[in-house]
Amino acid sequence: MTRLTEDQLISRFFAPLATHPGARGLTDDAATLSVPAGAHLVVTTDALVADIHFLADDDPDLIARKALRVNLSDLAAKGAQPYAYTLCLALPPGWREDWLVRFAEGLAVDGLEFSFALLGGDTVKTTGPLTIAVNAFGLVPSDHIPRRDGARPGDTLYVSGSIGDGALGLLARRRAQALAGLSELERDYLARRYLLPQPRTALAPAVLSHASASMDISDGLVGDLAKLLRASGASADLELGAVPLSPAAQAACKLDSGLLETALTGGDDYEILCAVPFEQRVAFEEAAQESGVPVTPIGTVTSGHRAPRWLDDEGEELHFARGSFSHF
Amino acid sequence: MTRLTEDQLISRFFAPLATHPGARGLTDDAATLSVPAGAHLVVTTDALVADIHFLADDDPDLIARKALRVNLSDLAAKGAQPYAYTLCLALPPGWREDWLVRFAEGLAVDGLEFSFALLGGDTVKTTGPLTIAVNAFGLVPSDHIPRRDGARPGDTLYVSGSIGDGALGLLARRRAQALAGLSELERDYLARRYLLPQPRTALAPAVLSHASASMDISDGLVGDLAKLLRASGASADLELGAVPLSPAAQAACKLDSGLLETALTGGDDYEILCAVPFEQRVAFEEAAQESGVPVTPIGTVTSGHRAPRWLDDEGEELHFARGSFSHF
Repeated sequence: MTRLTEDQLISRFFAPLATHPGARGLTDDAATLSVPAGAHLVVTTDALVADIHFLADDDPDLIARKALRVNLSDLAAKGAQPYAYTLCLALPPGWREDWLVRFAEGLAVDGLEFSFALLGGDTVKTTGPLTIAVNAFGLVPSDHIPRRDGARPGDTLYVSGSIGDGALGLLARRRAQALAGLSELERDYLARRYLLPQPRTALAPAVLSHASASMDISDGLVGDLAKLLRASGASADLELGAVPLSPAAQAACKLDSGLLETALTGGDDYEILCAVPFEQRVAFEEAAQESGVPVTPIGTVTSGHRAPRWLDDEGEELHFARGSFSHF
Repeated sequence: MTRLTEDQLISRFFAPLATHPGARGLTDDAATLSVPAGAHLVVTTDALVADIHFLADDDPDLIARKALRVNLSDLAAKGAQPYAYTLCLALPPGWREDWLVRFAEGLAVDGLEFSFALLGGDTVKTTGPLTIAVNAFGLVPSDHIPRRDGARPGDTLYVSGSIGDGALGLLARRRAQALAGLSELERDYLARRYLLPQPRTALAPAVLSHASASMDISDGLVGDLAKLLRASGASADLELGAVPLSPAAQAACKLDSGLLETALTGGDDYEILCAVPFEQRVAFEEAAQESGVPVTPIGTVTSGHRAPRWLDDEGEELHFARGSFSHF
């Protein structure tokens, strides 16, 4: 097989994605990024490594979309709208053109879905696993964005969507036996939630307008909640029964009650966790409803520095063996 | 050895470098990047992989500085002043804290030297080689930047600094015998030029004001010049004897005349190649002199689409077996 040069690879696979005018079709060494009048730039970056953040033989289309979506999730949690991204791609030995075709298709699909244009990048080879670093740019109307550290006692804690699907989906892929009691439909749903997270971009305006603190949940609800509260110098009371679980996750926890801990601490949710001041609750819920993204109150921020308290339906406090999942 | 968590690693090694106010000490999921009034943003990204772009056992201080400098070189060639950067770091198995200490020191040193602040990043582990992706932000006063495609017949072609030191430095490291006839001082000079490129940031204003086209030379002068001319739809006549060589590179070529081709095609120069309209020559040379960066005219842009013509002292045309070095 004749190998493409880096220039051929760029012009064939990536230049069609570089719709931002400042990218100049990826024909130069750098891009210009103009910030629209009245807008401010939000920057975040996340790297993914094969067999750590995804499986090397996953569909390249889904790998590409996941690489964009974990970054889009960070932007959404900060109330930002997607704008543009750069991509560094380290290709392992034996990469194939048909793999790249599919990978670029994934970038194209989500680039269109989220109005997220390729601005520039670098393609290198590696002797190790496929590695993808995305640098994402979002726009907000002012340079005030909801941080991790703004939660105040009395605020209500909300999560978007449903919790634990990604962690259970990964479990289903790694140990098929663990979820053998589920229907194929349920297992597929969970696997899909792991493979293709849904960034809550539509919820970003509601978060920006009403949240006192916000972050995306990537390392498990329990651990990420503790991080948000530590940053805010606060604590919280949480109702376990309030945490939104998908029907498939509910079915999994019914099969094996131990899986609830997996769901709450396992990571790969890419949902938004935010704190909303009491007087903003109604407005936030209305804005969320308008956005089409379900949000659920799961507890209340309290004063003090103790670890957040998780209470079950009988009001008993729960403790988690493992607070947080770490990809690192 | 107790392993640091990702959060500890960030707060210990990277947070002190995050002096840009929008980075908020790396305590959040995203940064804000405000663009000063009247300025425009230039974005470039370069990834480096151990044993491809540097040697895994190179001094971590120099690896860090090279990772910044190859990006700073791209900014300089576009006339941009350094502003901020994000860093994705994939650490291989067995990484050590003392390695990271030195790596962070390198980032700190060049961050200060070039007023280049860390804005954000991501640290992941990899089963493969150390991989570093830097996304660099520069500032220019308008969104006009010198591109590759602006060279016009009659323009003079200039290069900054001296050519070939990096390629010869790499050769000296890989095959000590190849340059055994050089003095230790000369070999050290060349090795240093490979290990620690000198981005021509000081020359950026002169390039911005006077160049019709510009790029940094990273894959060898011969190949990169051909790229610039192809993009511009032009050709050129070059004088081999005009190409500036350092005393050490001159000594190497005297030992073995074949090394001249290595110098001209080998890559790792990180000098600026630019085209300057005839009527701007004096102003460009004066601005360059003021910047302290030596620039040398090496030829003239001509019309037509044939490959650039390299002429030796007798006016004979030279052909290079290998036009360009590719890291890819």
